[in-house]
Amino acid sequence: MFYLIGLGLGDATDITVKGLEIVKRAKRVYLEAYTSILTEEYYGRELILADRDMVETQADELLMDAENEDIVFLVVGDPFGATTHTDLVLRAVDKDIKYKVVHNASIMNAVGCCGLQLYHFGETVSIVFWTESWRPDSFYDKIKVNREKGMHTLCLLDIKVKEQTIENMMKGKKIFEPPRYMSVNQAAEQLVEIVQNKRQSGETPSFTEETVIGADTQQIVAATLQEMTSVDLGGPLHSLVVPGHMHPLEMDMLRLFANSQHVYTSYEITSKHRDHLNM
Amino acid sequence: MFYLIGLGLGDATDITVKGLEIVKRAKRVYLEAYTSILTEEYYGRELILADRDMVETQADELLMDAENEDIVFLVVGDPFGATTHTDLVLRAVDKDIKYKVVHNASIMNAVGCCGLQLYHFGETVSIVFWTESWRPDSFYDKIKVNREKGMHTLCLLDIKVKEQTIENMMKGKKIFEPPRYMSVNQAAEQLVEIVQNKRQSGETPSFTEETVIGADTQQIVAATLQEMTSVDLGGPLHSLVVPGHMHPLEMDMLRLFANSQHVYTSYEITSKHRDHLNM
Repeated sequence: MFYLIGLGLGDATDITVKGLEIVKRAKRVYLEAYTSILTEEYYGRELILADRDMVETQADELLMDAENEDIVFLVVGDPFGATTHTDLVLRAVDKDIKYKVVHNASIMNAVGCCGLQLYHFGETVSIVFWTESWRPDSFYDKIKVNREKGMHTLCLLDIKVKEQTIENMMKGKKIFEPPRYMSVNQAAEQLVEIVQNKRQSGETPSFTEETVIGADTQQIVAATLQEMTSVDLGGPLHSLVVPGHMHPLEMDMLRLFANSQHVYTSYEITSKHRDHLNM
Repeated sequence: MFYLIGLGLGDATDITVKGLEIVKRAKRVYLEAYTSILTEEYYGRELILADRDMVETQADELLMDAENEDIVFLVVGDPFGATTHTDLVLRAVDKDIKYKVVHNASIMNAVGCCGLQLYHFGETVSIVFWTESWRPDSFYDKIKVNREKGMHTLCLLDIKVKEQTIENMMKGKKIFEPPRYMSVNQAAEQLVEIVQNKRQSGETPSFTEETVIGADTQQIVAATLQEMTSVDLGGPLHSLVVPGHMHPLEMDMLRLFANSQHVYTSYEITSKHRDHLNM
């Protein structure tokens, strides 16, 4: 049996009891690479680190003997957060290997802890690291569409792990750059720049520097977009939420995490929002 | 400390190791009512059943001593699936009680196991039980908007627990009807009726009886909407997915759960979808 087991979002004890039992008795246990924050000691056994490259090019080795033995692939969050894992499942099925999934929390549902109702989230977007020459802002349009419908937007922030420079890639050298994780500060800076560009081109931006934004790591902070460029949220991984219109209960919850009083007086409540909020 | 602990979606062993440790040492442990499927034995201690009525009217009692003792509230799925729990958090904070959340899988992220990418889901909808006189179909419009953008829609199916008849409610009698959980068959029947109504009024429905639909319980089935009215998926809880356009990898995954070959030949691939799918 091939097991895909979610590890949740916190520390090693966020694995489920079911997941831990399987890990302890399995023949081999792989751990998705950028999760090396976890200690092997907790699970009381050897873990084989598997980076994306290994999963994509050595899947046969990874799945070896899974017809007869229990092989585990550990994934931070829930196993179906990334396409790579779908691919692993399809490869297993192709080899007549049975598979089971042990679910866990992922940012896609844990973001609910900031108090915004999951049912009011529209499409999730990804904010990627800008370079000098590549500054995509297509995620802005998606946030805009969500906000027009009053929906919140979860923004997943870029992770660059095992990236090669173009030079090394062309030389075929497997030399990798140090991992980079986008912080809420960086994401907010890019959003502020987009907002300013829209304004300069005569467009009314869907949100402004004064819009309340939620940020989520181990700690939750609600602040304006501008404040979010400098808020200290500690180490990675971060994510960001651009709220749509908010129910009073949602506002009450966000207030718990407010960076300053300023936040709630500055939220641009349009008449449409006011009707919705019964204000 | 007041703990909100998610139980995940499967059986008692889907609690996290962290959650179980807290449950074992806590002073009182409440269990959200319609989760009585769980056995007390597993957690090795008494659980107090808390229905919605109790949470809403006896929150003070529930939170009693939580300043000094550990009190746990167990929730199926993830704690932030329902507004009731947000309300509990706000009440706790109001009493200067600290709280912590132990996340777990919920249908909002576990739906990924059907192979459709979570990032391609639009707004989630709820399909409610129709009565003779009340047949709301506003969820159809939300599915339509999602499909126009090529997004998938997760449809949560109605749960009626501790419902009173209007007669008993008016008499002030706390007599409750037996619990009802909407099955995928019932949901599909309502959707088929809506599709037929749209057609009769001259509108081209956003999807038809032949559209591929995913259904999700412990087992996953992909079938046409029409087939879904009679597919046997076992007991509750069920949910339903109306896909938007699908990536080839998503189609490969759905094929694993196909009810019949028919499913994939009948999916109406428009030119827009074809471009997207590189077909």
